[in-house]
Amino acid sequence: MSVRTPDADDNNWSDDSEWRSDENRAPLSDSGNSINPAWLSDTELIQIRQKLPLAYVEAVPVRLDGLGRVVEVGLLLRATPEGRITRTFVSGRVMHGETIRDALYRHLEKDLGPMAFPQLPISSVPQAVAEYFPSPSITQYTDDRQHAISLVYVVPVTGTCEPRQDALEVTWFSVSQAVSESVADELEGGRGSLLRIALGAIGALT
Amino acid sequence: MSVRTPDADDNNWSDDSEWRSDENRAPLSDSGNSINPAWLSDTELIQIRQKLPLAYVEAVPVRLDGLGRVVEVGLLLRATPEGRITRTFVSGRVMHGETIRDALYRHLEKDLGPMAFPQLPISSVPQAVAEYFPSPSITQYTDDRQHAISLVYVVPVTGTCEPRQDALEVTWFSVSQAVSESVADELEGGRGSLLRIALGAIGALT
Amino acid sequence: MSVRTPDADDNNWSDDSEWRSDENRAPLSDSGNSINPAWLSDTELIQIRQKLPLAYVEAVPVRLDGLGRVVEVGLLLRATPEGRITRTFVSGRVMHGETIRDALYRHLEKDLGPMAFPQLPISSVPQAVAEYFPSPSITQYTDDRQHAISLVYVVPVTGTCEPRQDALEVTWFSVSQAVSESVADELEGGRGSLLRIALGAIGALT
Amino acid sequence: MSVRTPDADDNNWSDDSEWRSDENRAPLSDSGNSINPAWLSDTELIQIRQKLPLAYVEAVPVRLDGLGRVVEVGLLLRATPEGRITRTFVSGRVMHGETIRDALYRHLEKDLGPMAFPQLPISSVPQAVAEYFPSPSITQYTDDRQHAISLVYVVPVTGTCEPRQDALEVTWFSVSQAVSESVADELEGGRGSLLRIALGAIGALT
Repeated sequence: MSVRTPDADDNNWSDDSEWRSDENRAPLSDSGNSINPAWLSDTELIQIRQKLPLAYVEAVPVRLDGLGRVVEVGLLLRATPEGRITRTFVSGRVMHGETIRDALYRHLEKDLGPMAFPQLPISSVPQAVAEYFPSPSITQYTDDRQHAISLVYVVPVTGTCEPRQDALEVTWFSVSQAVSESVADELEGGRGSLLRIALGAIGALT
Repeated sequence: MSVRTPDADDNNWSDDSEWRSDENRAPLSDSGNSINPAWLSDTELIQIRQKLPLAYVEAVPVRLDGLGRVVEVGLLLRATPEGRITRTFVSGRVMHGETIRDALYRHLEKDLGPMAFPQLPISSVPQAVAEYFPSPSITQYTDDRQHAISLVYVVPVTGTCEPRQDALEVTWFSVSQAVSESVADELEGGRGSLLRIALGAIGALT
Repeated sequence: MSVRTPDADDNNWSDDSEWRSDENRAPLSDSGNSINPAWLSDTELIQIRQKLPLAYVEAVPVRLDGLGRVVEVGLLLRATPEGRITRTFVSGRVMHGETIRDALYRHLEKDLGPMAFPQLPISSVPQAVAEYFPSPSITQYTDDRQHAISLVYVVPVTGTCEPRQDALEVTWFSVSQAVSESVADELEGGRGSLLRIALGAIGALT
Repeated sequence: MSVRTPDADDNNWSDDSEWRSDENRAPLSDSGNSINPAWLSDTELIQIRQKLPLAYVEAVPVRLDGLGRVVEVGLLLRATPEGRITRTFVSGRVMHGETIRDALYRHLEKDLGPMAFPQLPISSVPQAVAEYFPSPSITQYTDDRQHAISLVYVVPVTGTCEPRQDALEVTWFSVSQAVSESVADELEGGRGSLLRIALGAIGALT
């Protein structure tokens, strides 16, 4: 399955222009957009995607029991413009000047809402590294927009998830449901394997 | 530095006999102590220590900032019978029939009190594995009582630590203080190196 | 599936008495067996198994391509006394006085022969930690003899595997075959899940 | 210490123009440089560095003993144009269309020569993730050219290292020497801390 990752740079997923320009503005910038060299126009982003791998972070939201074991796995649900249901992780670019933790926090808040209360990982080392390529022949992960290198973290959330209104929902699965074939088929870009890898890395596969 | 690990099996550290017998009682037992085959007398424990490596868990308590970065490291303080100050981690045996998570939780509560509210690790894979031997020539970690294999976890605590009354205190250090030579010299059994390894494993060394 | 792990302490798997007494002799011993306090008789081992968790190491042998990717997974094959085929990992106890690396090396040589040329892991932190209990209700891993805590490593081998003659063979599978349901059903003690976890931890699940 | 990372994009470190253009050519390209959209001119690279974090891989070469323990750590030595000695890791960009493993292999061969025979990691998850910023106030790692996100691997080498002629040498240190203050002071961009973190992650700090 090779569909586009929903992130702020993608016209297909959002026409929320203010959000998009916020997304494209680098965290380091403290001046107006018009003269900020770190600001990427859509045209520039398209060009850069042909020339460099882009750095991404992804988060798999989970709920834990009192002993720290994974009880449920949260996956974002979305209908494609063609009406097909797809699922994905919390996901997005690391901006220029932004730390990985800041990027994780920003995308978690954007996709899960301000009341999700995620527990950011104590380790900067991710549970998995995923390499997305436009061509499916290089790795098992595909993104038809770009070559992306993604650091994937399993992130416990303790609050209430309220995804943004652009067609996102969070569905909570048991671990065995989440890694089932039927859910894997709905996960975009090969993230069915990636979910098993990330859960395996913390010993949470059954 | 080769001193005894403070755990419930050690007569030198506690004359709290009820606690000790509780410690020695296996979690699986549901009958009286006198006929429970999983109960270990002190004599038996001494004998077994000559014959098998014992399985331990250890926890390094830390405090985090809002982005999950380690801000402070908690070390247990104790005066030896000879009056020397030593520091150590939360530490103790895994009992027969007890899971690693249960053992971690039990020892965290025993050493930090019921209001510490530790966040048990989502991964069952530890940050470090330490092998303690009576002889200092085999590894860098020593325990003059036994050969112990210890799974070491970095554990965020969010509440208030109130160590038990048997001479334990928790001292909070910045990361750079915690890994300094002077603190390393006070950490028993070679845990100065082990602390650097555990913090390195989560990318928290400076 | 709850069957016995093949290791040197198990009468069912071997009547090779010299090997068994070698296995039971602690590496630290330099005196005769009759007076060595670290020597465990079969009776003692049975008793100790009721009282303490035993420390194990396990290795999943793999073959790599030139870029370090897992190409094949090696599983040990054996027929049970009842004639059923089971598969397992390289596996065995850590002896008193023996380091984890020494135990890994010893069991790899015992199960794969002297020409397997395993590359022992550079990290002492395992890919997975498995907790085996006699009762299947506590974790997903079972061992009807004992409570065992096992450190599981993925170990590349570069030479030729010649398992010992006691009914063991090494079968090489592609990664997708190795984690298939049919192979998982043949892996004893719940190691089907464990194999997925260990391969997930290194990003090698497809 | 905030100095430039030696990589192929940096005019200060090399006037080997053929090597540089090879470096700048994307692995996916199969056409002439003049029309390859993945080719980055120096001007473009300078511009992109103001707008995006760049993806890097780094390798810490080590020599192992027969049981897989780190015996020596290899650091690249170089004299700056000002005559100061600095040390660093094997390091370089991940190109568009190139996998992390391919990038690791390419940079290892470039910096250590064709006879180093590195053992690429079985896990795609790195030992550490380093975030380099031009400003020293954001993380402990600095690179005055760019914001770089670097995946850091510890890589055993079994052959002979013959660094390229542009002023590079490999110096082998014991672990305790490699993490000493004096060597840390010579490591550029904050890699003294990073080396401790990477060695800690595999349990190899003493």
